[in-house]
Amino acid sequence: MERIARLTLINSLTGFKSGNLIGTQNQNGVTNLAIFSSAVHLGSEPPLIGIVTRPIVPDGKTSRHTYDNIKNTGFFTLNHINLAMIEKAHQTSASYPDGISEFEAVGLTPQYLGLKNVPYVLESSIKMGLEYVEEYVIKANQTIMIIGKVLELILPENCLDERGNVDLNLAQTVAVSGLDTYHSTQKVLRLPYARAKKD
Amino acid sequence: MERIARLTLINSLTGFKSGNLIGTQNQNGVTNLAIFSSAVHLGSEPPLIGIVTRPIVPDGKTSRHTYDNIKNTGFFTLNHINLAMIEKAHQTSASYPDGISEFEAVGLTPQYLGLKNVPYVLESSIKMGLEYVEEYVIKANQTIMIIGKVLELILPENCLDERGNVDLNLAQTVAVSGLDTYHSTQKVLRLPYARAKKD
Repeated sequence: MERIARLTLINSLTGFKSGNLIGTQNQNGVTNLAIFSSAVHLGSEPPLIGIVTRPIVPDGKTSRHTYDNIKNTGFFTLNHINLAMIEKAHQTSASYPDGISEFEAVGLTPQYLGLKNVPYVLESSIKMGLEYVEEYVIKANQTIMIIGKVLELILPENCLDERGNVDLNLAQTVAVSGLDTYHSTQKVLRLPYARAKKD
Repeated sequence: MERIARLTLINSLTGFKSGNLIGTQNQNGVTNLAIFSSAVHLGSEPPLIGIVTRPIVPDGKTSRHTYDNIKNTGFFTLNHINLAMIEKAHQTSASYPDGISEFEAVGLTPQYLGLKNVPYVLESSIKMGLEYVEEYVIKANQTIMIIGKVLELILPENCLDERGNVDLNLAQTVAVSGLDTYHSTQKVLRLPYARAKKD
């Protein structure tokens, strides 16, 4: 199989993925925004989320602003990609020169809330601010799993009910597949806690 | 916030999640099937997937058949949950006594393909067999990330094109949110590789 086709295929294997923009800022105040489809829920008490970044290649060419900013400042934001911002979110994956913020390059707006110097995406409906906790370098391929703890959560009041259900359909959060395909969703079923049936 | 509501909320934060059934078998031939929404793509060369399991609690009551079987045999399968099998897939999360296979309890069919003694879900359209590679215990909450390498892949011919795109909509793979909510999807947009625009 041709290399890019194989890459596309392998990226589809797990099924649907989350689509998020990670917002960071360096110590000179330059903001950065990067698309990630690897956010994974790790636990609720404390609320922990993992994200997977590519290996840090010491070739002097590959910049890893997201990783560097998280390590240097200790904070980042996770912003759901909405249906209305798919193109802009995808465009953050282009390679921009140092000193150019993806916020400006793609036309999204940095927003500052409770965490100092940590930019959210104004246009995003559901978003959260996290503190760096720890990281694991995966021996098998040198990717890095960064683990963050949720400190701050912003979501529209009408997207949350009293039982803790978040209506991702109403929030227009997208689902991602492969490297470049974006999907809308429709709720099919919500099921009660499963119990073994008694005979 | 009430505990279950908080748990539900925190489980929704990353956005849409994959929905998979993990099939394993113990050394006595008893099969096991368990629902996971934490599968994450880790890399393509080699093809690596991570899954997150809850902490191993040495209380003598909590059984972790999936983890034990993967460690003891070195293999497991990942089977996409289709729209037609949502209830059965969800029901695998119930607590069944030792010696009872979730396949039989919920009404799904074990299927054996290239890997010896490693059960797939017959009813699943897209499925793969993996070999255990390594694991990481997350210090922050004692969850375990298990990493597997894809050895075998089964998917319907009409769901894969020559460019490696997998049509998850056609395969009727579901997206999951929170603890218990299942969604169908509709493709909105596929975008080309992003490049920085020249002025």
